[in-house]
Amino acid sequence: MEIDLESFEFFTFAKKLATMSLLTVGTVAFDDIKTPFGHAEKVVGGACTYASWSASYFTNDIRLVSIVGDDFPSDEIDLLHKRGVKTEGLEIVEDKKSFFWAGEYHDNMNQRTTLATELNVLADFDPILPNSYKNSQYIMLGNLTPAIQMQTLKQLNGDPKLVVMDTMNFWMDVAMDELKEVMKHVDVITINDEEARQLSGEYALVSAAMKIHEMGPKFVVIKKGEHGALLFSEGKIFSAPALPMARVMDPTGAGDTFAGGFIGYIAKSDDISFENMKRAIIYGSVMASFCVEEFSIEKLKTLDENQIHARVNQFVDIAHFNM
Amino acid sequence: MEIDLESFEFFTFAKKLATMSLLTVGTVAFDDIKTPFGHAEKVVGGACTYASWSASYFTNDIRLVSIVGDDFPSDEIDLLHKRGVKTEGLEIVEDKKSFFWAGEYHDNMNQRTTLATELNVLADFDPILPNSYKNSQYIMLGNLTPAIQMQTLKQLNGDPKLVVMDTMNFWMDVAMDELKEVMKHVDVITINDEEARQLSGEYALVSAAMKIHEMGPKFVVIKKGEHGALLFSEGKIFSAPALPMARVMDPTGAGDTFAGGFIGYIAKSDDISFENMKRAIIYGSVMASFCVEEFSIEKLKTLDENQIHARVNQFVDIAHFNM
Repeated sequence: MEIDLESFEFFTFAKKLATMSLLTVGTVAFDDIKTPFGHAEKVVGGACTYASWSASYFTNDIRLVSIVGDDFPSDEIDLLHKRGVKTEGLEIVEDKKSFFWAGEYHDNMNQRTTLATELNVLADFDPILPNSYKNSQYIMLGNLTPAIQMQTLKQLNGDPKLVVMDTMNFWMDVAMDELKEVMKHVDVITINDEEARQLSGEYALVSAAMKIHEMGPKFVVIKKGEHGALLFSEGKIFSAPALPMARVMDPTGAGDTFAGGFIGYIAKSDDISFENMKRAIIYGSVMASFCVEEFSIEKLKTLDENQIHARVNQFVDIAHFNM
Repeated sequence: MEIDLESFEFFTFAKKLATMSLLTVGTVAFDDIKTPFGHAEKVVGGACTYASWSASYFTNDIRLVSIVGDDFPSDEIDLLHKRGVKTEGLEIVEDKKSFFWAGEYHDNMNQRTTLATELNVLADFDPILPNSYKNSQYIMLGNLTPAIQMQTLKQLNGDPKLVVMDTMNFWMDVAMDELKEVMKHVDVITINDEEARQLSGEYALVSAAMKIHEMGPKFVVIKKGEHGALLFSEGKIFSAPALPMARVMDPTGAGDTFAGGFIGYIAKSDDISFENMKRAIIYGSVMASFCVEEFSIEKLKTLDENQIHARVNQFVDIAHFNM
């Protein structure tokens, strides 16, 4: 199962960025993050930011949909442009502030406390897709209100190849009906294990995934953070290994980075088979493993194909066993 | 990577129970267990019980060391005898009660509250190994006071092939020095992820495992319950997949069942290489996955080689990916 670092297939694949279009919708924001390892004040964050940066290592036709205030640094937007991210769909509201979230992670980093949430521009977000976005082939609905996710889907005039949605427990608490409506229109849902249990009312994850599948999505991806991820589809199961980390600074955005790498890889390979989604889960996990090594999107800004490739190899290596 | 159900190698291996001797020390006890799925009152439990039942599917020379009161049912001891478990080293104290633990699992089953702990006979446990046990080749030091684990080791007069210890956070809180002393004398430590962090003071599990390795054990096994397990040894890492479950009734004893399957498989194959320990981790995980399907040791009493084999195949199948 080892991949040869010099393998011809990998390099031609890695260097040929896909022309498949990928629409990403979600927050572009500021975060204030405390972890046992440090404090990052007013740094760039947001689901759409993480997902777009992550996907940019796989495809160079990313169409970002989000909203910021005029406090959002234009050089951050320029950096996205350089990565192939189009921002025609990024609304910039004068005299208003960007969405802001402050949180603190506790010792085990699997739990966090929200210290502040300032919706700011997000309170009035009603995404309008530019015409040039409407034929997008791959769609990543980042974690946002189900109403905005639905509003985005309704404006597509093509027939997308794959729609992936992310969500969280908050929407199950306050907007379950709308959430269930969106679920009927997506191919893949990414969700964490506790949320899968909440959404399905089932403790055992196989049963939970089956119930969620019945609610609409053909594929159910259960994200387990440092513990890996699971992929379910019609009786088939893939359990992706956890990659034990030597350095973890900040878990913020890891799930969005995973989602961006997942759909980015699928868009690049233009293959929505179960076997290819397994590979996409490994690539998503690899991108997330980089994300947590530094605060904010710092690490995601510095990567190259060789690093990504080397970590994929590490995954293959640590997961290998012969019975 | 699929194993053929009819494969000759597997069946000859499965049917040839090892003659390697395995000493298991730990509690034999009663539990009262509440989970969201039911309530089991005064059922058989204890680390040594679970580990011995689990190991009995791999080796038929198990030497149990523990203590019970005269309230412990003799037919449970008879059942162990039938599985090849010798109980010369099981002290039965007249007019005293067996160790008793009562606990309740919360919704996510990863957390539990202890409702009662009655040490009873365990308060005075000072294990004396029968002479016939002293040359045991494989040693499983179940979760007990480090002093008792050390006391067991000191009575061995042979040179065991492998010593595995299990422990828990409680001993880190109240007996860290003794725990560290035992760690100097074992080959493998099994520990859960939070405990690995507590013991090492490191959050990142690779760093945690390295520090624990420096404290003595050549191999560090990090048990992550439903999330799988990790094996570390001198720069080598194996990340065992999580097996998503369709039925979970009671997680009690899963870690001990894992440990019993792990060392049982190693004793049976008589091979302490890293590659073989990977297989042992899969077998341990398989045994634990059966354990949680019913309360107490009920499921462990009913297994056969075919069921174990089929679930090993399932592991291979769900973990398989090609990059």
